[in-house]
Amino acid sequence: MSRLFKRFSSTLTETITIKSTPSKTHLHRPLPTSSFPTGYLATGIHAGVKKKPGVLDLGLIVSTSEHPASAAACFTRNAFKAAPVVVSDQILTKNGGRARAVVVNSGCANAAAKVWRTLGQWSARPTLSCPPSTFMAENHTLVMSTGVIGQNLPISKIVDGIRSQATTARTLASDFPAWERAAKAFMTTDTFPKLRSRVFTINGTEFRMAGMDKGAGMIHPNMGPATTSFPALHATLLGCIFTDAAVSPRSLQSALTYAVERSFNSISVDGEMSTNDTILVLANGAAASKNGKVIEIDEETDKEGYETFKTQLTEFAVELAQLVVRDGEGATKFVTVNVKGAPTYEIAHRVASRISTSALVKTAFYGEDANWGRILSAAGSISVPGLDPSKVSVTFVPSDNTGSLPVLVNGEPENVDEVRAKEILSLEDFGICIDLGGLGNEEATYWTCDFSYDYVRINGDYRS
Amino acid sequence: MSRLFKRFSSTLTETITIKSTPSKTHLHRPLPTSSFPTGYLATGIHAGVKKKPGVLDLGLIVSTSEHPASAAACFTRNAFKAAPVVVSDQILTKNGGRARAVVVNSGCANAAAKVWRTLGQWSARPTLSCPPSTFMAENHTLVMSTGVIGQNLPISKIVDGIRSQATTARTLASDFPAWERAAKAFMTTDTFPKLRSRVFTINGTEFRMAGMDKGAGMIHPNMGPATTSFPALHATLLGCIFTDAAVSPRSLQSALTYAVERSFNSISVDGEMSTNDTILVLANGAAASKNGKVIEIDEETDKEGYETFKTQLTEFAVELAQLVVRDGEGATKFVTVNVKGAPTYEIAHRVASRISTSALVKTAFYGEDANWGRILSAAGSISVPGLDPSKVSVTFVPSDNTGSLPVLVNGEPENVDEVRAKEILSLEDFGICIDLGGLGNEEATYWTCDFSYDYVRINGDYRS
Repeated sequence: MSRLFKRFSSTLTETITIKSTPSKTHLHRPLPTSSFPTGYLATGIHAGVKKKPGVLDLGLIVSTSEHPASAAACFTRNAFKAAPVVVSDQILTKNGGRARAVVVNSGCANAAAKVWRTLGQWSARPTLSCPPSTFMAENHTLVMSTGVIGQNLPISKIVDGIRSQATTARTLASDFPAWERAAKAFMTTDTFPKLRSRVFTINGTEFRMAGMDKGAGMIHPNMGPATTSFPALHATLLGCIFTDAAVSPRSLQSALTYAVERSFNSISVDGEMSTNDTILVLANGAAASKNGKVIEIDEETDKEGYETFKTQLTEFAVELAQLVVRDGEGATKFVTVNVKGAPTYEIAHRVASRISTSALVKTAFYGEDANWGRILSAAGSISVPGLDPSKVSVTFVPSDNTGSLPVLVNGEPENVDEVRAKEILSLEDFGICIDLGGLGNEEATYWTCDFSYDYVRINGDYRS
Repeated sequence: MSRLFKRFSSTLTETITIKSTPSKTHLHRPLPTSSFPTGYLATGIHAGVKKKPGVLDLGLIVSTSEHPASAAACFTRNAFKAAPVVVSDQILTKNGGRARAVVVNSGCANAAAKVWRTLGQWSARPTLSCPPSTFMAENHTLVMSTGVIGQNLPISKIVDGIRSQATTARTLASDFPAWERAAKAFMTTDTFPKLRSRVFTINGTEFRMAGMDKGAGMIHPNMGPATTSFPALHATLLGCIFTDAAVSPRSLQSALTYAVERSFNSISVDGEMSTNDTILVLANGAAASKNGKVIEIDEETDKEGYETFKTQLTEFAVELAQLVVRDGEGATKFVTVNVKGAPTYEIAHRVASRISTSALVKTAFYGEDANWGRILSAAGSISVPGLDPSKVSVTFVPSDNTGSLPVLVNGEPENVDEVRAKEILSLEDFGICIDLGGLGNEEATYWTCDFSYDYVRINGDYRS
């Protein structure tokens, strides 16, 4: 058989004209220059992991608050967990959900566990004048890593880079350029830095939140509180959020778990779960001090305060997660998939996830084709107990508020105005809504992009 | 927000040079011209559903055996089942697993349930001289439909086409050209007709088997014995197998269920389960008559005969299923994914399926890149109880028997010879083997293809 197929030559080339992926410069909207949380110092430096001089490859964010920052994390549920995931998880567990700093390196994800373990023992202290030996005793630094594989992580460069931040060469600061440097040090194939901030009020006190993330390919995270070791593999979703609110470690974790489920765990670029996906949150309480005392928000003792914090964290996480989809490899569309009328959130989420990862649905988006049959087919491949096809409806929802377009109503195909359908699908932003037909009142929202020639180009030729 | 994104123009075009999908003419190897089962008449005609004159669009295969043919089917498990699926299932149930004929139309899949119900009541009788009213009373015809959506099925053309086969215009025959016509009438985006035959022996008696299938896109079937109604949606996997062995309806169904699980349910082109996927098998016993008596093989009364039949049916189904992957939309590679060392077949199958549908793995295949990290990442996204990453191995297996290439051994990356890796990946046929590390002795094999520019071209512009 094989001999038969060797006649095939893979070197043929052909010139074709395709719709190119447009520049994403319109997404580089001004980064937030204020509303950064108090009690943090941030920076991004060129440590030399990336070859190109001056390109930032090491990010460092340190809590300077006297109050020990609570920390929580959601890690990839992939069976093969990258070393930074394992190390960060161990540090969090050992410290009972407290941390002082986050170190992230881009440019090389090939970090053996022991290397990261060394790094994890470093900690940036509130006062940055202590010698490295003191840092190592602290063991309060969470670590993240992203980049290409097949190279050894130049750990000495990273260590030198961190050490420089404890000396006169330090660039750690609390202003916008410092946060922007940190956000830029995250970037791999990202086309713009992803930094956001916000102000919110709990019990009359004003707090702040800043966050950054990165990712463009291998994006379909499924993260939760973790517990394993494997060489880091590659590109990934990384994000971290910093607030000056005070939240107990336990409640910070439950708020993050909820937020991640409805944000980062509800996005897909290409349906690929990475071995490194990590979202961290630090809450240092720097703005929560009253009469020199910090009272941490806890879901048991302050339900209302906790709910407000959880809502703020979720909204903020959604904002950060959406940036990743907008910057998705080859993406030309940003599509919101809403599934309602489901018996449970999990079922709604599964259906939305399946639609959001369907190659046929996503190529139809790219082709600006309102092919509801593909949407339905994808939805139907998920087992939904009690589903009655004659009660299912599908609607296209334009982002410009010019009116929705039902294409299937109670199982009956509408006589669709193809011109109007094309109009909606030609928008960069649009949504689709699938009503499962009154199986319940639960709903879930997913954010996805289209599948273009450029995705194949980027990933058909990644290492070479 | 939306206003911001309207700046994007979707009409930009760019000329790029890509590796084109090679012609698949080398796959059009000579069809089998003999070994067709006795007691069947087949044909394919141009009924007029497809617009182009002379293009076959209606296939008909009729059992002429006196012994009533046993029939079994595996239908899509999609929640939205196409009308032909529902009708065929009802006919099979009503007749206790017996059928006389199969009618398949291509060119239009938009068949409302009642239309197919009418058609399902038609039956081709052993003697083809009876009037249509007699056919209708028989109700022994199984139906299949494939093609584009958004058009009404011209049922009168189909009925006229079938009627012509009961009159002087009939082209029904038992020779190779007749079977070839039937196979061609199945085709939609297929680039070659998919017809196979084989001879096998049970208990000293020689039997024959012929089968045909179609499909190129929306291929990731999950089929089982069925039990719903919805308008047919579109392209799909269809296949039918005819044998002159005699098998009881119950045993025919259990043999088919087993065979389909290890063949059609183990292939993927694009991860998309259709609403129409159907595999039918008829066993008419025409070669099983001894002294005028037909004894049906049954798993209870003739375990050995049954096992032989099941094995033959499974091997044959694998052969037919592989043809679909080879003809996959945009496919330039045929990849065998073997997962072993699993605790259960189901887990091995789930891991193999996930790897076979990974966009990153498949674009790496297209780029001829031995990116084992992507394979591992995809495998790890499936929950495998007890999996120890330090015991997992990954090997590339060339189809030309020039020696396998381990890339990961017991969790440790090998120092891979990139030249050799490229050599293997540049073959049209190769395999990957993932050993889960002694969790059990179960294994599963999946067949998949790569993900190319051409897939995006074909499906980004399907309806327009």
